[in-house]
Amino acid sequence: MAIQSELDQRAINTIRFLAVDAVQKARSGHPGTPMGAATMAYTLWDRFLKHNPANPAWPDRDRFILSPGHASMLLYALLHMTGYDLPLEELQNFRQWASLTPGHPEYGHTPGVEVTTGPLGQGFAHSVGMAIAERWLAEHYNCPGHEIVDHVTYAIVSDGDMQEGVTSEAASLAGTLRLGKLITLYDDNDIQIEEPTDRVFSENVARRFEAYGWQIIGPIDGFDMAAIEAAIRRAQAETERPSLIICKTVIGYGSPEQATAEVHGSPLGEENVRAAKEALGWPLEPAFYVPDDVLAHTRQAVERGQQAEQTWQQRMEAYAHEYPDLAAQLKAQLRGELPDGWDAGLVDLFPPDTSPMATRVASGKALNALVERVHALTGGSADLAPSTKTILAGYGDFGWHEYCGHNMHFGVREHAMGAIVGGMALHEGVIPYGATFLTFSDYMRPPMRLAALMGLRAIYVFTHDSIGLGQDGPTHQPIEHLMNLRAVPNLTVIRPADATEAAQAWRAALLKTDGPTALVLTRQKLPVLDRTELGSAEGLQRGGYVLWDSANGMPGVILIGTGSETHVALEAGKQLADEGFSVRVVSMPSWELFDRQPADYRESVLPSVVRARVAVEAGVKLGWERYVGLDGAVVGMEGFGASAPADVLYQKFGITAEDAVTTARALLGK
Amino acid sequence: MAIQSELDQRAINTIRFLAVDAVQKARSGHPGTPMGAATMAYTLWDRFLKHNPANPAWPDRDRFILSPGHASMLLYALLHMTGYDLPLEELQNFRQWASLTPGHPEYGHTPGVEVTTGPLGQGFAHSVGMAIAERWLAEHYNCPGHEIVDHVTYAIVSDGDMQEGVTSEAASLAGTLRLGKLITLYDDNDIQIEEPTDRVFSENVARRFEAYGWQIIGPIDGFDMAAIEAAIRRAQAETERPSLIICKTVIGYGSPEQATAEVHGSPLGEENVRAAKEALGWPLEPAFYVPDDVLAHTRQAVERGQQAEQTWQQRMEAYAHEYPDLAAQLKAQLRGELPDGWDAGLVDLFPPDTSPMATRVASGKALNALVERVHALTGGSADLAPSTKTILAGYGDFGWHEYCGHNMHFGVREHAMGAIVGGMALHEGVIPYGATFLTFSDYMRPPMRLAALMGLRAIYVFTHDSIGLGQDGPTHQPIEHLMNLRAVPNLTVIRPADATEAAQAWRAALLKTDGPTALVLTRQKLPVLDRTELGSAEGLQRGGYVLWDSANGMPGVILIGTGSETHVALEAGKQLADEGFSVRVVSMPSWELFDRQPADYRESVLPSVVRARVAVEAGVKLGWERYVGLDGAVVGMEGFGASAPADVLYQKFGITAEDAVTTARALLGK
Repeated sequence: MAIQSELDQRAINTIRFLAVDAVQKARSGHPGTPMGAATMAYTLWDRFLKHNPANPAWPDRDRFILSPGHASMLLYALLHMTGYDLPLEELQNFRQWASLTPGHPEYGHTPGVEVTTGPLGQGFAHSVGMAIAERWLAEHYNCPGHEIVDHVTYAIVSDGDMQEGVTSEAASLAGTLRLGKLITLYDDNDIQIEEPTDRVFSENVARRFEAYGWQIIGPIDGFDMAAIEAAIRRAQAETERPSLIICKTVIGYGSPEQATAEVHGSPLGEENVRAAKEALGWPLEPAFYVPDDVLAHTRQAVERGQQAEQTWQQRMEAYAHEYPDLAAQLKAQLRGELPDGWDAGLVDLFPPDTSPMATRVASGKALNALVERVHALTGGSADLAPSTKTILAGYGDFGWHEYCGHNMHFGVREHAMGAIVGGMALHEGVIPYGATFLTFSDYMRPPMRLAALMGLRAIYVFTHDSIGLGQDGPTHQPIEHLMNLRAVPNLTVIRPADATEAAQAWRAALLKTDGPTALVLTRQKLPVLDRTELGSAEGLQRGGYVLWDSANGMPGVILIGTGSETHVALEAGKQLADEGFSVRVVSMPSWELFDRQPADYRESVLPSVVRARVAVEAGVKLGWERYVGLDGAVVGMEGFGASAPADVLYQKFGITAEDAVTTARALLGK
Repeated sequence: MAIQSELDQRAINTIRFLAVDAVQKARSGHPGTPMGAATMAYTLWDRFLKHNPANPAWPDRDRFILSPGHASMLLYALLHMTGYDLPLEELQNFRQWASLTPGHPEYGHTPGVEVTTGPLGQGFAHSVGMAIAERWLAEHYNCPGHEIVDHVTYAIVSDGDMQEGVTSEAASLAGTLRLGKLITLYDDNDIQIEEPTDRVFSENVARRFEAYGWQIIGPIDGFDMAAIEAAIRRAQAETERPSLIICKTVIGYGSPEQATAEVHGSPLGEENVRAAKEALGWPLEPAFYVPDDVLAHTRQAVERGQQAEQTWQQRMEAYAHEYPDLAAQLKAQLRGELPDGWDAGLVDLFPPDTSPMATRVASGKALNALVERVHALTGGSADLAPSTKTILAGYGDFGWHEYCGHNMHFGVREHAMGAIVGGMALHEGVIPYGATFLTFSDYMRPPMRLAALMGLRAIYVFTHDSIGLGQDGPTHQPIEHLMNLRAVPNLTVIRPADATEAAQAWRAALLKTDGPTALVLTRQKLPVLDRTELGSAEGLQRGGYVLWDSANGMPGVILIGTGSETHVALEAGKQLADEGFSVRVVSMPSWELFDRQPADYRESVLPSVVRARVAVEAGVKLGWERYVGLDGAVVGMEGFGASAPADVLYQKFGITAEDAVTTARALLGK
């Protein structure tokens, strides 16, 4: 064990015992990692981290990610000690209702928390997204003599993070992209919940990351500040490779049960709290003890931070003087603003005489129209860009030789794509999107959920959205996915019925600033609805709208469709009208947008008295009862799809106008 | 390019052009990989693979997994040529309705297909599960001089597979477990859909797998049979490490567009089909040409296979003679049979006076009771066993030093766990389970979906099933997950209300042989319902049942609960009864089981005329309209959870008996 200055050592122990005491008081939480990783974290924060506790939103701050979110008290202790708006009372209120110190760090809830962590691997993968955004903005906005975007992304990761596949995906891509300003400190403590780590994780992590193209530093003694300092300096000096610093630590350091899984996820217990304090020479009383001189030292971060930001503001002014347009654009992007007239022409892209077009194709055209004005748009696909139609033509490829390209290439890594898109959104300055087939949305659910929880402006483009993709068969045909996305709180799901709705869908996605949006698009061509005869596609902004009424007055039956099945519903509706029924056809591209409308609007679209309702969607029926109730019916899928041409599948699985007509007739008792 | 025998070379070209012609005829499919990987696959199948085309179910066959499922025609060609029941007409009917040759290989649909593949990474990860099952069965059943379980698991993997996180997870675990009979051939062709592979995947795959503890062989020339043969022999000789054979190939070999992404996923086009045939010296006509001598050669597999199985059957008889009990048990396990009296005592585990108990704890007790009779039960957790209560006490740990342990340790690798459990189920002989927190089910959706599609007997144990887990907060509190599992076709989801239902839930899980089951369990304690006063827990087998009626005759209001909220519904029901309402309380642990009941049973539980219905579940409301319709109401979650003690959360989020009573009163207009 190396010796640090006595003050540093006490600062480190302050972190440790704030965590220990908070967990003990809450009777819940994870003391082990804060006790083991306190030295690493303190060294980084005290010697290196560029941040301004008085303004956690300073755009050029370094980013710090605590990937093992269960060690939240480590972060809360640092935030409190360095002067963020997080009083000691909040730490004493750890894990209680409405406190600023929830069990796992929550972005947008606690000042200074850069990302919500807890599900392992996500913090690390999001950090890669942040480093990408930094690199992209630096490439676009830095000018000779004006390095106005210049910060480092640091992450602490745990053994558990290292075992998650999303970490592997993101690390491989980070190596390929040579993200030199990404520095990861690995808290390598040889313990996980079920057993010593080598029982399930005997791999050589250093060699693995080396294979990804990372610089490996260590293993070093994770309790030796000088070694950690030297390692971080070496990492900073390497500009062409991300760096992994392997720090050997001891979980629950100081506790009689240190180096065992016992100290991972439960309070130490009064006896072991006392024993740990005695072992590390810490006063037994008071709990939550922060020595004055320690606080005075760590709170210097406030002044340092203010000076750092002030210096940056001055540089920003000089930059704005020399490059006023660039500076204005950067500032607007960082604020998340859309430029004036950003959506000009968008809704006119597809006039009524447009040839039948897949909504994925319409989406691609809308996206390419948008990027001409919305410079912040940048994203890509998990190796399916030619199919997802998400290439921004003429906007370059982001990569080693060209970091200003708008087109990201994620490789066959859907999970990391989701997290990287989230990290880019968190960084701010870009509006990111990620694309794959809808069926593979299953690979990226954890980061989508986090984006919804954090309220990020992230956009997912999911194509090949039903059995309509045809011959690739049931592994590729989404059935439950659409409903499963709808079930995620604060995720807006939009499945446009045609090209005109696809353009509106992109508009809605860009207008949604407090949560992610999933666009769900067809592989197959669809007619472009003639809006001179049907309800305006503008209705998409309200989620659902009357597409067509066969007659005035209250309809006798309502058919509801989304996406490609809106056409099935419309055809069925016309047929029923020919048979003399009074029919309404509703296009319902987005449940979330519809459910957010005032009750009278919803009532005007779906009048309560009309109970003969048929929903048509080539997915699971489950969920549609929300709109059709116990007296209506759903024309949908009962099981998995099959491999055959799309038109055959629609016939065989009974999702046709005839099926909808028969179903409606049965409801009407005819 | 090495020279093979002229016959071998024509056999390889037969595979190539069967694929090319089938894709061309279907106007859909992926010719590139079959053209590139034909030599690897042919060498393996012709020189090594132990299989019996006349009996694809022979238990001691080697397993062959084609992880890039889009190359399905490669597999179909081999199956046809080696004499499986797959006539040439089926290959000519590629990707058509009801053909045996769907776009991606489907287990249970085409003889000889070991696993449904298509979503990348899954095939490889499932192969690890198969190798684990083989090792486990070998350890349990082989006796000195009787190696009755002794086969190799081979997989072909692609660049795309290598980029998926699930591959990393499974490979790391395979290395740790030293699965010496797992042999992976890597079709390394440097091309993926969006670009040359090095643009997004510059990592050194060999060094990465070496870091996992694998033997690395190659890179070798993937068109050189002698090199492939030597490599496979070397892999077979290594018994303590899995082997990765890196084969350099050329995608679309022979086509004018070889070595480009153009040949990946579309028909070559007539002109390039002709050019490819000319380039490789193949007759232009007929299409689907299989030379007689090639077929005669490859069909020798039939006789070889029959002899191999016959020899094994003789060895099995000798084994049965010497170890009759072991042999009988093994045979029963391979048939998936449960022993007589397998569930004896299970339903009596929790008498009415049992202290309050979390359903995860009850599940653990049921599981431990079951394993005493059901020897095939083996599984584990993704590093959460102490919390998921899935340890089989006294049944050992599966790992390097003890391969007969029933307790698997997956590490923090939920995704691989899902696939490995699937691979174990596919192998047959074991009844596998995997456990984690319900919120992390999001990490393992792709393999769960495949298990449902394949109809596997796999069991998922998901604990910490709601805000009831308390202080870990919103990242750990499932909201949408329960409904999202219910949306998967052929996945049975069971959320028991108490210990007695938990025992019944395990019973239902073991009885379900044609699809997976997810058990959804609480962290928090729940009272054990007094079945002398309430409906029998046996009702769980029907999915939903009347738990309590306040009076005879038609109820005025129905309250429906699942899991922990069944108690909320029951308390609310009693309160409403005290207020003079006629109330029914329904326990609805499994929608799938309930929806499968005859209409009259469902009507007897939820009479159509009773429209005042309140569902209570601490998850999304979406979906519950299936049972409560437009006139009922749901007491559930509107958004994400929060970090606080569970009882506080139930109060704050309004999921209490009082909330249910108020809601019911409102429905009744009182």
